[in-house]
Amino acid sequence: MKKEALKVAVIGGGSSYTPELVEGIIRRYHELPVRDLYLVDIKAGREKLEIVGALAKRMVEKSGLPINVHLTLDRRRAIEGADFVTTQLRVGLLEARARDERIPLKYNCIGQETTGAGGFAKALRTVPVILDIAKDIQELAPDAWMMNFTNPAGINTEAVLNHSKVKSIGLCNLPIGTQMQVANLTGVSAAEIDMEWVGINHLNWATKILVDGVDILPEILQKAADAKGMTMKNIPDFGWDADFLQSLGALPCSYLRYYYMTDDMLAEEIQASKTDGVRAEVVKRVEKELFDLYRDPNLTVKPKQLEQRGGAYYSEAAMNLISSIYNNKRDTQIVNVANNGILPFLPDTASIEVKCVIDSQGAHPVQIDTPIDARIRGLIQIVKAYEELTVDAAVHGDYNAALQALTIHPLVTSAKVAKSLLADILKENEAYLPQFK
Amino acid sequence: MKKEALKVAVIGGGSSYTPELVEGIIRRYHELPVRDLYLVDIKAGREKLEIVGALAKRMVEKSGLPINVHLTLDRRRAIEGADFVTTQLRVGLLEARARDERIPLKYNCIGQETTGAGGFAKALRTVPVILDIAKDIQELAPDAWMMNFTNPAGINTEAVLNHSKVKSIGLCNLPIGTQMQVANLTGVSAAEIDMEWVGINHLNWATKILVDGVDILPEILQKAADAKGMTMKNIPDFGWDADFLQSLGALPCSYLRYYYMTDDMLAEEIQASKTDGVRAEVVKRVEKELFDLYRDPNLTVKPKQLEQRGGAYYSEAAMNLISSIYNNKRDTQIVNVANNGILPFLPDTASIEVKCVIDSQGAHPVQIDTPIDARIRGLIQIVKAYEELTVDAAVHGDYNAALQALTIHPLVTSAKVAKSLLADILKENEAYLPQFK
Amino acid sequence: MKKEALKVAVIGGGSSYTPELVEGIIRRYHELPVRDLYLVDIKAGREKLEIVGALAKRMVEKSGLPINVHLTLDRRRAIEGADFVTTQLRVGLLEARARDERIPLKYNCIGQETTGAGGFAKALRTVPVILDIAKDIQELAPDAWMMNFTNPAGINTEAVLNHSKVKSIGLCNLPIGTQMQVANLTGVSAAEIDMEWVGINHLNWATKILVDGVDILPEILQKAADAKGMTMKNIPDFGWDADFLQSLGALPCSYLRYYYMTDDMLAEEIQASKTDGVRAEVVKRVEKELFDLYRDPNLTVKPKQLEQRGGAYYSEAAMNLISSIYNNKRDTQIVNVANNGILPFLPDTASIEVKCVIDSQGAHPVQIDTPIDARIRGLIQIVKAYEELTVDAAVHGDYNAALQALTIHPLVTSAKVAKSLLADILKENEAYLPQFK
Amino acid sequence: MKKEALKVAVIGGGSSYTPELVEGIIRRYHELPVRDLYLVDIKAGREKLEIVGALAKRMVEKSGLPINVHLTLDRRRAIEGADFVTTQLRVGLLEARARDERIPLKYNCIGQETTGAGGFAKALRTVPVILDIAKDIQELAPDAWMMNFTNPAGINTEAVLNHSKVKSIGLCNLPIGTQMQVANLTGVSAAEIDMEWVGINHLNWATKILVDGVDILPEILQKAADAKGMTMKNIPDFGWDADFLQSLGALPCSYLRYYYMTDDMLAEEIQASKTDGVRAEVVKRVEKELFDLYRDPNLTVKPKQLEQRGGAYYSEAAMNLISSIYNNKRDTQIVNVANNGILPFLPDTASIEVKCVIDSQGAHPVQIDTPIDARIRGLIQIVKAYEELTVDAAVHGDYNAALQALTIHPLVTSAKVAKSLLADILKENEAYLPQFK
Ligand SMILES: [Mn+2]
Ligand SMILES: [Mn+2]
Ligand SMILES: [Mn+2]
Ligand SMILES: [Mn+2]
Repeated sequence: MKKEALKVAVIGGGSSYTPELVEGIIRRYHELPVRDLYLVDIKAGREKLEIVGALAKRMVEKSGLPINVHLTLDRRRAIEGADFVTTQLRVGLLEARARDERIPLKYNCIGQETTGAGGFAKALRTVPVILDIAKDIQELAPDAWMMNFTNPAGINTEAVLNHSKVKSIGLCNLPIGTQMQVANLTGVSAAEIDMEWVGINHLNWATKILVDGVDILPEILQKAADAKGMTMKNIPDFGWDADFLQSLGALPCSYLRYYYMTDDMLAEEIQASKTDGVRAEVVKRVEKELFDLYRDPNLTVKPKQLEQRGGAYYSEAAMNLISSIYNNKRDTQIVNVANNGILPFLPDTASIEVKCVIDSQGAHPVQIDTPIDARIRGLIQIVKAYEELTVDAAVHGDYNAALQALTIHPLVTSAKVAKSLLADILKENEAYLPQFK
Repeated sequence: MKKEALKVAVIGGGSSYTPELVEGIIRRYHELPVRDLYLVDIKAGREKLEIVGALAKRMVEKSGLPINVHLTLDRRRAIEGADFVTTQLRVGLLEARARDERIPLKYNCIGQETTGAGGFAKALRTVPVILDIAKDIQELAPDAWMMNFTNPAGINTEAVLNHSKVKSIGLCNLPIGTQMQVANLTGVSAAEIDMEWVGINHLNWATKILVDGVDILPEILQKAADAKGMTMKNIPDFGWDADFLQSLGALPCSYLRYYYMTDDMLAEEIQASKTDGVRAEVVKRVEKELFDLYRDPNLTVKPKQLEQRGGAYYSEAAMNLISSIYNNKRDTQIVNVANNGILPFLPDTASIEVKCVIDSQGAHPVQIDTPIDARIRGLIQIVKAYEELTVDAAVHGDYNAALQALTIHPLVTSAKVAKSLLADILKENEAYLPQFK
Repeated sequence: MKKEALKVAVIGGGSSYTPELVEGIIRRYHELPVRDLYLVDIKAGREKLEIVGALAKRMVEKSGLPINVHLTLDRRRAIEGADFVTTQLRVGLLEARARDERIPLKYNCIGQETTGAGGFAKALRTVPVILDIAKDIQELAPDAWMMNFTNPAGINTEAVLNHSKVKSIGLCNLPIGTQMQVANLTGVSAAEIDMEWVGINHLNWATKILVDGVDILPEILQKAADAKGMTMKNIPDFGWDADFLQSLGALPCSYLRYYYMTDDMLAEEIQASKTDGVRAEVVKRVEKELFDLYRDPNLTVKPKQLEQRGGAYYSEAAMNLISSIYNNKRDTQIVNVANNGILPFLPDTASIEVKCVIDSQGAHPVQIDTPIDARIRGLIQIVKAYEELTVDAAVHGDYNAALQALTIHPLVTSAKVAKSLLADILKENEAYLPQFK
Repeated sequence: MKKEALKVAVIGGGSSYTPELVEGIIRRYHELPVRDLYLVDIKAGREKLEIVGALAKRMVEKSGLPINVHLTLDRRRAIEGADFVTTQLRVGLLEARARDERIPLKYNCIGQETTGAGGFAKALRTVPVILDIAKDIQELAPDAWMMNFTNPAGINTEAVLNHSKVKSIGLCNLPIGTQMQVANLTGVSAAEIDMEWVGINHLNWATKILVDGVDILPEILQKAADAKGMTMKNIPDFGWDADFLQSLGALPCSYLRYYYMTDDMLAEEIQASKTDGVRAEVVKRVEKELFDLYRDPNLTVKPKQLEQRGGAYYSEAAMNLISSIYNNKRDTQIVNVANNGILPFLPDTASIEVKCVIDSQGAHPVQIDTPIDARIRGLIQIVKAYEELTVDAAVHGDYNAALQALTIHPLVTSAKVAKSLLADILKENEAYLPQFK
């Protein structure tokens, strides 16, 4: 890419994460000349957009860089002619997320933002909006790259890959977060760690952990047993059983606790829902505090408290990706792309999350070295089958696909429960699910 | 096959099912000239072998056919030079099965003979014995066909296919039983029904139900909703929800209740375990009654009560298969064979249960017409991954594979529960699991 | 199928083969109640249609069966409401075939009706007509089965499978012909022979030859060496080299002489073209004689001389297939169908020629037992790649695909020759290739 | 790799290429600390080894670097404890190559060092030696990387991948050479060019040619038409036809002239064989001149004349690869590795030549973006089938595999010719083919 003045549009620009992204843009200005940064949000998010937008402007001003920050509710104007469009939106706001997290608990099922029935509800609301944005991009900025950071990122990416022609990549901070966890465990810096990462978004295993080309996975599996801190901010910090890790032979990502420790995680969620509230309710309080800070007209940097929010390294991951595309870096990063045979036990059309070479033509997945064992393969396959059905359900408003998606999800306990869950989800999200009418 | 005097060896010949098999042999004598029928059992089964063997001899005598029934505890003598070796054995007898069914209930998991942790325990005990028999066959009757009727039939078949060179086929009465259920539902005779049958042993879906070449599946899905009698004798007769069946778009086999109705099935099992006892305990009583009948020196036919036992049509399926091989019939039957691409989403080495052309060279699977939807694919994949690990665990005494097999099984609720289950299973079956020492 | 009065439409009904087809219909009337037989042809074929149609009527009259023979130039009327539509047409008549056979000889390339550059030219002319017929069927007889006997049958079938939604099967008399050759070699009757047949139309190998379930391939490979009569009428009877057959380990079909004996076959073709003329010219004389016979108002049976024509067993194969569909026979026959993984080294969309179970739902390929060796695989792959490009070229009038199709064909000696061949073919067939305008 | 003093063994160290390699080692010393360089050769090569070894020593001495150059005939001593073992050997010397090139001409077939019957003969001689070296490495330097530069590199690499456990990569200068050709054509520097390279060794197509992330392939295809210089030194410089390049849609590698321009290439070879001699004979004269230069005790640099020899950029490619492994660079290079699904239409065990990420764990192929068209796929498949059979023939001395390998090769005109060729090859190479006894 030879362009010397980039336009970046951030859909959901009023998010509390935006200061981190702005910080990332400023820090990389020497290699990534962002001239116009559009923060766009919906009407209901106008206040937050204005607060965070003002902070963004102060941050840029302090940097002295020729970046123009634009705040707008007009998504099409933001997208028009953009070079990169990132999505970090939340359909239905934290209120909807709280419902996603509470409904499953009624049926003794995991209630989580992206995993299980909660993630399913979020997908039904989000996929149509994401595809709508993709349509705008195709019309208004056909050469732009669409970066999906919006959860459930794997499902959203798969929807865009198969129902749109825009160039798109899905991104999550879990790989970089896991690298940080491993770094903490070993004392090696995160930048020195190169993982072989197998799976789909939020359902991953590190099958090699390389430091200077040497695989330290066996050592990590020992150190990780019962260790604290091997998790993301939003996921309870239960330690992994030593025998279990040995028998697995790979390092599970934080979200795999929902599958491997379903009983403990469920108990914790039920308990928390009665005390602190579900995660959305906690986040709501954190966000309130963050926006109170953001309002401070003297604040010109990203406040430290943002790191408590759970999205750590998100900006790092985002800006790394954009810069490698812009600069044709041909380095490797872990992102979400179309499978096309890299995981031969999944459909070619599945979105997967693996190490890719990033260049100006996009993300090119690298062959997995380690033969993928049945212990990992089986879980990936059933959750991907659920995701495939969920995309169908979300795109076409297909009740049958929706019921079967929930039914086969490993965290939903029976077809009867699936039916009840679906009834609740459709009812409580009615305003956001026009496709089911 | 040009032979005019066949030798058939039945391993586990003392089984209460044997009279049905003998009846089948007698009825097909005109096309299948069995000259020597060896009923072989282990020392602990001597008494039952003698009772059922005496009945078999009376049945043959009454038929007037030149069939010699041999009773023996010498398995190698029975196998030597045989044309067909069938296995219908039960390592650890009904006592072991009762434990298989009770242990999981302690952890609120399904306790079932072939499905879930119960089937897993049975597999650990059985696979080594089956492979031992295969070794004898290879040495003493290398041209013989080995017919695995022993449960878990899918796992046992997969073990033989991948760890032995004998010619072998796995068989189950579930396909023919399902055909009978459909026949009852419609009034068409079972013989007129031709199903497209997708999946692996005890985890199957009928994706077409053809009568005279016309697919009546849609009609069956409507009729089957909430219907009684759509199950095998050993599986509680809960009706399928109408919406669920519609959303599935295929007829699930009886065993799928354990996956789709886990909560109701578990409640029923717990309840039954407190009243009638687990299924093994019920069967024990039925068997006692059967053997009391078999003892009657005037009995010269298979008693009607055997049909209550749960193995209905088993002899039908068995003799159909053997006769088609012997007579090079080139007809189609549903049996368990190596996948090799028929279900492209499973490993080539997996055992699958599908329609095959049967000729003297064995069973040749036929391509599946219906594109297999994610709703079916996902479940098959994870259970097959469990089976693959179970074969590894059973063959090599591999604790890690065993722990992961249980962990990923959809009917085991967490890795912690898996670990406890495995500890119980290894301890309670210690006498039968030399490979784990 | 429950219908009791069938309508069969024969496109290209004026063909000299028609009496054989009529004979087959009469002989099978007891199981296949054809009430209306439409023989349809184009204007240029009117005279032949009338001659052969009159013979057909006399044959039916003699049989006393209630079959109505209709002669028509109105293809749509013939297709409307038909149960089976067969195609046996020849775009451009024997004149075009003669050109197909002569043009390649100019460049020292094999000139053959279906194989190489000749078959390519025929495909360009024929595919659009076949797809046009398929379009009529979809509109006028959407439940009808389309049986492609028209050459190049593999390419035509692939075109219909991928560019139409009609139910269709491709058929060739080569499998049954090869069975006859083997029968002659061994003394066993053809009906007792069951071959494993691997490949694509006119590029096949028998990888097993079963008699009563026993594989006699090794014996056949020895007997076939240097034997006479191991070929179809239209292919010179060069014997196979003994060492070559042994190293191949499979029985090659007659057409494989063009690939394995290219030099001898080419020499023979060049020689013949100077004396007897190319095959089309020989056939023209044979046809003239046949039609002279057909004209005889006293002739009421298929004349013996038809067997010299080269299409032996064609009616046998055709009527077997139709009858098995109509009667839901579930027997096995070798026909051309979509691959979908049966030959895993070819695209799913490729047409392949293999053993299938035939029932009222169509043809269902059976898994190949024998691992397919590189010696067979490689040739199938490159010729199928040529066919894929040829379908593209024929459907879209794509010059680039056409040039590359010829270039990679093993019987075309260079890209330069391919370019010259293509120029000649496009020019000499201009009247029949509107898609290239 | 943390080692600070590397041992490199060069098998075939007496080669005329060695000075280039030594130059590369010297130039990269700052990042690749080679302490011990073993040049090893066979007895027959002692004189050349001494000449080139003396030059190597003078070059090192001049550099002032602490590199020890060792000359030896003891291969095992050279391999013992090595970090990298490279092979650049020629079994039977140039005399054997001359025979490889002349024998096919007798039968009007292409006679070439690596392609067709000539390459086949070379493979039969070379594979056993390469596997023998691999055995030594496994025993004496099990952690070493084996770099196969020896031709036919694709076949040798496939043999090592499937018949040995050493870590190995195959390398060719064709990708880098093609980059240079493209660079000359466009004026862009070679280092800026990033190709998508599809195929197997010496049978490749560039399907994208990226400069700063932009695909300039369309422009290159126009410029390459009829251009001079689009070839390697050892391949006649026939220009590509413009229409042909357009219809192909990819840039063919130099060696593809043998397949696409068979007639012209054969005519040129026959002509040359009568005047200058076959390529081996030309090379022999060039080598003589080179060694005369090498003998000069005042020569302390690689002489310019070496570039005429045909192996340009070979050292560049070799040292890039070794350095990226040693330094865990994670950059991308085009090398020969196991397929494992990257080209889904080839066996997993095939060696392929594609872009890989290179790190201390080896070469990890990157997914191909461009859907691979039938026009490319077909040729790759049949030549790979030939290579698979050739490996079998070479490893097991299997006459049948050998005969079929030659028979299906697109550049061998018939099975009869294949049989004659094989007889000649086996006879003329008798001394080097113990496996065929
Ligand atoms: Mn995430
Ligand atoms: Mn069963
Ligand atoms: Mn044919
Ligand atoms: Mn090379």
